[in-house]
Amino acid sequence: MTEQEVLDRIARARARRPRVREERITLAHGAGGKATQNLIEAIFLDAFDDPALAALEDSATVEVDGAHLALTTDSYVVSPLFFPGGCIGDLAVNGTINDLAVAGARPRFLAAGFILEEGFPVAGLTRIAGAMSTAARAAGVRLVTGDTKVVPRGHGDGCYITTTGVGRRDPTVRLGITTARPGDAVLVSGPIGEHGVTVMLARGDLEIDADLVSDTAPLHGLTAALLGSGATVRVMRDATRGGVATVLNELADASGVAVVLEEDTVPVRPAVRGAAELLGIDPLYIACEGRLVAVVDGADQERALAALWDHPLGRDAAVIGRVVADPPGLVLLRTGFGGTRVVDTLVGDPLPRIC
Amino acid sequence: MTEQEVLDRIARARARRPRVREERITLAHGAGGKATQNLIEAIFLDAFDDPALAALEDSATVEVDGAHLALTTDSYVVSPLFFPGGCIGDLAVNGTINDLAVAGARPRFLAAGFILEEGFPVAGLTRIAGAMSTAARAAGVRLVTGDTKVVPRGHGDGCYITTTGVGRRDPTVRLGITTARPGDAVLVSGPIGEHGVTVMLARGDLEIDADLVSDTAPLHGLTAALLGSGATVRVMRDATRGGVATVLNELADASGVAVVLEEDTVPVRPAVRGAAELLGIDPLYIACEGRLVAVVDGADQERALAALWDHPLGRDAAVIGRVVADPPGLVLLRTGFGGTRVVDTLVGDPLPRIC
Repeated sequence: MTEQEVLDRIARARARRPRVREERITLAHGAGGKATQNLIEAIFLDAFDDPALAALEDSATVEVDGAHLALTTDSYVVSPLFFPGGCIGDLAVNGTINDLAVAGARPRFLAAGFILEEGFPVAGLTRIAGAMSTAARAAGVRLVTGDTKVVPRGHGDGCYITTTGVGRRDPTVRLGITTARPGDAVLVSGPIGEHGVTVMLARGDLEIDADLVSDTAPLHGLTAALLGSGATVRVMRDATRGGVATVLNELADASGVAVVLEEDTVPVRPAVRGAAELLGIDPLYIACEGRLVAVVDGADQERALAALWDHPLGRDAAVIGRVVADPPGLVLLRTGFGGTRVVDTLVGDPLPRIC
Repeated sequence: MTEQEVLDRIARARARRPRVREERITLAHGAGGKATQNLIEAIFLDAFDDPALAALEDSATVEVDGAHLALTTDSYVVSPLFFPGGCIGDLAVNGTINDLAVAGARPRFLAAGFILEEGFPVAGLTRIAGAMSTAARAAGVRLVTGDTKVVPRGHGDGCYITTTGVGRRDPTVRLGITTARPGDAVLVSGPIGEHGVTVMLARGDLEIDADLVSDTAPLHGLTAALLGSGATVRVMRDATRGGVATVLNELADASGVAVVLEEDTVPVRPAVRGAAELLGIDPLYIACEGRLVAVVDGADQERALAALWDHPLGRDAAVIGRVVADPPGLVLLRTGFGGTRVVDTLVGDPLPRIC
């Protein structure tokens, strides 16, 4: 087959009505990649058939009583619960803030549902609640309601948290994964993959010692700075499950464009690169929890970069690629050796329970 | 000790600053009774210290951009997932609708977070999503955003769902568990305990055959009818975990009043009464998922009853008791034999994973 035939075959497969082939849920269904997408499209979109849900953004845009709101929910099942740089508590708060922030919304209120396993130490819960409180205060967000359930030993794993966020959206800001167009620049706000690698190493299964901490951070200040810079921003996403590669595949698919990345420009710390090599995973697929991926009009690239550099969370921001017309729906990487390869959507789950 | 001394001792214990005595989480911490209250007050209220959270209502009252909202979240860990009359899906949707409805809010939007166990049948998830969709449509509520995580075998139990609801609140409606006053009437909208007993029987541990189905239902129509009746409504609650007894204890405590129930007037179906006797549990403690508890001004009792009777979900509504001044914080039951006993807050968890 020629390269074009391969590309055509991928495009045809993607255009098919999604269905779940497996009879049972696998870890891959929770990995944020192809299987997750299939599951969501085949089961949830089919059952609910709602335009806000079908937009498949990180948060839904709704209007109540004249107020423009963003609404988002995320369940956190990270293992271990505590890791260098954070814990499930601040991860849950920051993650929810970020899903609102990348919708251009100002995070306002949080709700939290806890599913605790019988036998979980009360001191651990106190520590998690403290971390959530600190993270919420730092971001000026109020946790106003919650729920606690306990499941018997062997039916949970210490503590699962589902956080939901409500934010106030500026209705004049137009963002969306369908709006990327050829000529746009693709930016990331800092080095990628630190959260994922940190959590993997914290499990202790690997005999690797790296001086890494999770990148978990609230991005609402950074997104506000970018939106306030005057640059035309088309898409903002935080690169969590499935990493930068998954975000870019989603937007290439939704916008009907291609993304060409320059490998040399993607910021990756040496410790992450080393651990990723040992794990056999491309850093592009590793979760970040405080890194912004933004697509801006190519003409505004410098202005956008300057705005990110000006913010403490964007000092290492970089342009990592560009949007082009063809082949639509694909993400390509130009390697340091001059080759080009397809950076496809994640299959399987190389890094389970990273968030 | 005299009865007064016993009552004084209970009052003193209640006035103490709550702390969690146990080092580890037990099933009782999720039962909705004393241990849950302690956990919430000692850990979550301490960490978050927010007036909306501290109100300890079923939903939080917040304002965004001039809009008056109610926000609520609940995790569902019911076992089994499917039971006569419903499944975890409609239970989660109705339960969230009800937490908004009893705040006098009109439910508008839902978010759902799924924690699936590896190996869970895809057909089961499809069925659950279908039930959620049907329940949401029936109530005119849109599910607009969601999240799916998968945990390895042995770290979940098929499917846990956390639903969050956003409703529009009428700011002129004043409700709250601190507002009950002597002379008020206490009503329930129908027979109690059906959900809890149905789920217990569905587990098949008991050799009881009863023709019962869960009472899961959305209460927003019923609450709107009651509020629209012109009766002065002080408190509305749905009697879920911990049952009617727990709701009444919370409001007696928060309002500084006593509630006197007349046992003969509490509607309980014979099948529920029979199963409850075999289980050794007072039906007052058994969860309902579609029953409203309302406290209304005593002068408006007939008007309130008429409004409930007029609604399909309130045909068997009854006045079950009255608010009196003393002894503050207690719920008393006048039995059919002429005696009186204290109906205390639930200790332990006689019916785990009922919702």
